[in-house]
Amino acid sequence: MQPRFEVLARSGAARLGRLTTAHGTIETPAFMPVGTYGTVKAMTPEELEGLGAQIILGNTLHLMLRPGAEVVALHGGLHGFMHWQRAILTDSGGFQVFSLESLRKITEEGVRFRSPIDGSEAHLTPEGSMDVQRALASDIAMALDDCTPYPATEAEARESMERSMRWAVRSHARYYASEPPGGLFAIVQGGVHRALRLASLEALLKLEWPGLAIGGLAVGEPQEERLRVLEELVPHMPTDRPRYLMGVGFPEELVESVQRGIDLFDCVIPTRHARNGHLFVPGGVINIRNSAYTRDLQPIDPGCACYTCRHYTRAYLKHLDRCKEILGSRLSTIHNLHFYLELMRALRASLAAGTLDAFAAAYPRPRRSRVA
Amino acid sequence: MQPRFEVLARSGAARLGRLTTAHGTIETPAFMPVGTYGTVKAMTPEELEGLGAQIILGNTLHLMLRPGAEVVALHGGLHGFMHWQRAILTDSGGFQVFSLESLRKITEEGVRFRSPIDGSEAHLTPEGSMDVQRALASDIAMALDDCTPYPATEAEARESMERSMRWAVRSHARYYASEPPGGLFAIVQGGVHRALRLASLEALLKLEWPGLAIGGLAVGEPQEERLRVLEELVPHMPTDRPRYLMGVGFPEELVESVQRGIDLFDCVIPTRHARNGHLFVPGGVINIRNSAYTRDLQPIDPGCACYTCRHYTRAYLKHLDRCKEILGSRLSTIHNLHFYLELMRALRASLAAGTLDAFAAAYPRPRRSRVA
Repeated sequence: MQPRFEVLARSGAARLGRLTTAHGTIETPAFMPVGTYGTVKAMTPEELEGLGAQIILGNTLHLMLRPGAEVVALHGGLHGFMHWQRAILTDSGGFQVFSLESLRKITEEGVRFRSPIDGSEAHLTPEGSMDVQRALASDIAMALDDCTPYPATEAEARESMERSMRWAVRSHARYYASEPPGGLFAIVQGGVHRALRLASLEALLKLEWPGLAIGGLAVGEPQEERLRVLEELVPHMPTDRPRYLMGVGFPEELVESVQRGIDLFDCVIPTRHARNGHLFVPGGVINIRNSAYTRDLQPIDPGCACYTCRHYTRAYLKHLDRCKEILGSRLSTIHNLHFYLELMRALRASLAAGTLDAFAAAYPRPRRSRVA
Repeated sequence: MQPRFEVLARSGAARLGRLTTAHGTIETPAFMPVGTYGTVKAMTPEELEGLGAQIILGNTLHLMLRPGAEVVALHGGLHGFMHWQRAILTDSGGFQVFSLESLRKITEEGVRFRSPIDGSEAHLTPEGSMDVQRALASDIAMALDDCTPYPATEAEARESMERSMRWAVRSHARYYASEPPGGLFAIVQGGVHRALRLASLEALLKLEWPGLAIGGLAVGEPQEERLRVLEELVPHMPTDRPRYLMGVGFPEELVESVQRGIDLFDCVIPTRHARNGHLFVPGGVINIRNSAYTRDLQPIDPGCACYTCRHYTRAYLKHLDRCKEILGSRLSTIHNLHFYLELMRALRASLAAGTLDAFAAAYPRPRRSRVA
């Protein structure tokens, strides 16, 4: 089915909403844990449900390479393959393939690249991405885009954006050529250039999309640039459809983006940080590898109600990390995802109560290192 | 408290029993999953309980090196450290330190060795092992033994066994010098030599032990040698105390050992095999890395009721293994531990029903490779 979106409440540009798919309802603003290879690393589907995740993200490029769309299709799609009953959004593979800097060649047709798995030649086209995402049977698919790098000249950003717009048309044609498993979202590109962003949006709106994403951010630009792009772009976006800011971000960045009208997020930060021993606490992160925690009998966060904080000490988590024990990755992932999903619940509650601005003003903005 | 043992039923040499500790009752014959570093690799305590584990094993030498007995003691012992409410048996570190072939030097006092963690000099004595195990506060501690290698001459085996007996006396004195957290089991040594085994047992029985273990097996000797040792030794062991065969083994070896009067087992095979993609099925093992499973939509074992077999295909498990996903280790460990614990339930049921010999006769004896 086509995803349906309702706005339930507003606070400035921010919205409380509800996104309905064939695999359940997503309360927005929502954060999507990333499940690259058909698994949110270290988690079972039941654990994700217990944490309150209503939608997860799957990576088309990774699944196309391993195990291949055909194997997933034998299971009726990604839901059956990975035993996840709730909603799934799949990316297009665009961002992933553009991350393979040295391994790719872009043409109008698509992208040729060497598989990072085995070095074999592979290619990704709008039609190919749609075919894979249809086979994955995600509830929300993404159009293939050419992800403009940062920094880029305006000419480079324009060329890349215009290619993305042509690919969006091809993606739409292929995805909707026959009964689709879900709905296709378009991706606005244009780098940090206002005119290009607005031109991209205008081009996309010539077709029908059940949702729109903002791509090409969280690729190294300063935080202020990103917020400026949101402030210049979002007010022009349709109000009746969900807005998805791809690849963002740290907790305070989610807060600031929600204030600017974003409804959906995905990011590897909570899960990847967890496996590296970086654990979110109010106002920052603790690095469990620090020797200060060797004898620390406190939970990660005494105010946290997650399974990990209810039952385990920092000393134990430090020990598990030091011994590279799988349980360490599990417990840390549970905590960090709980932290993110709890933040989204708090954002939704403040939107429902009309107190978002006060919540956001009080939310701590720690200095972050992006190197994990 | 001192563990208490009751025999509820017999079938030849085999017994159905009940071992009671301060952390619950263990129905015997029982298998103890191995939790080397204060975690049964990849599992939460709740998952182990769900699988029916009533007792697990912790490795004293490993925990002494990381995080150190003092850190565990700050948590009130290993139960609090790892959030496990049921019974724990700790080994003495003897077998582990003797596995460090090139790194150790044995004297009457104990063993000097280089820490495999950081190369620092460390030593393990009977008194030191008892102090660590008391700090770990396990329900069952093990006396420090000198583990006779295989093969060994009778003279070597005798020297090693006699040292173990002197260490057992020292272990007993230290463990019971003040109120102990649990009970101390002795370990019969003597290699594959009948006279030495019986002399070892006789020496140990001069002291009171709530249970007796058989050490120095599962170290490379042929299966027939091991069964012969059991047949020569077990009939002389006290009937009112549990008998623990250390480090054994494959499923059919558990069946054969139960028939010969063994009540307790521990082994890394189910958990280690799982992480290597070797999954137990009736009559053998499937190696999930085999390309035959790429498109196999069956569960590991269509007759298995474990979580993994209820929800996931071989194709998915193969994919997770190929991508080195943590969830793969988790799902495989759940299945293999379920297989072992289900076998123990079946053995106890057949003992209760008086059908052990028929069960054992029908139990498959596949050819095994010990290389995993």
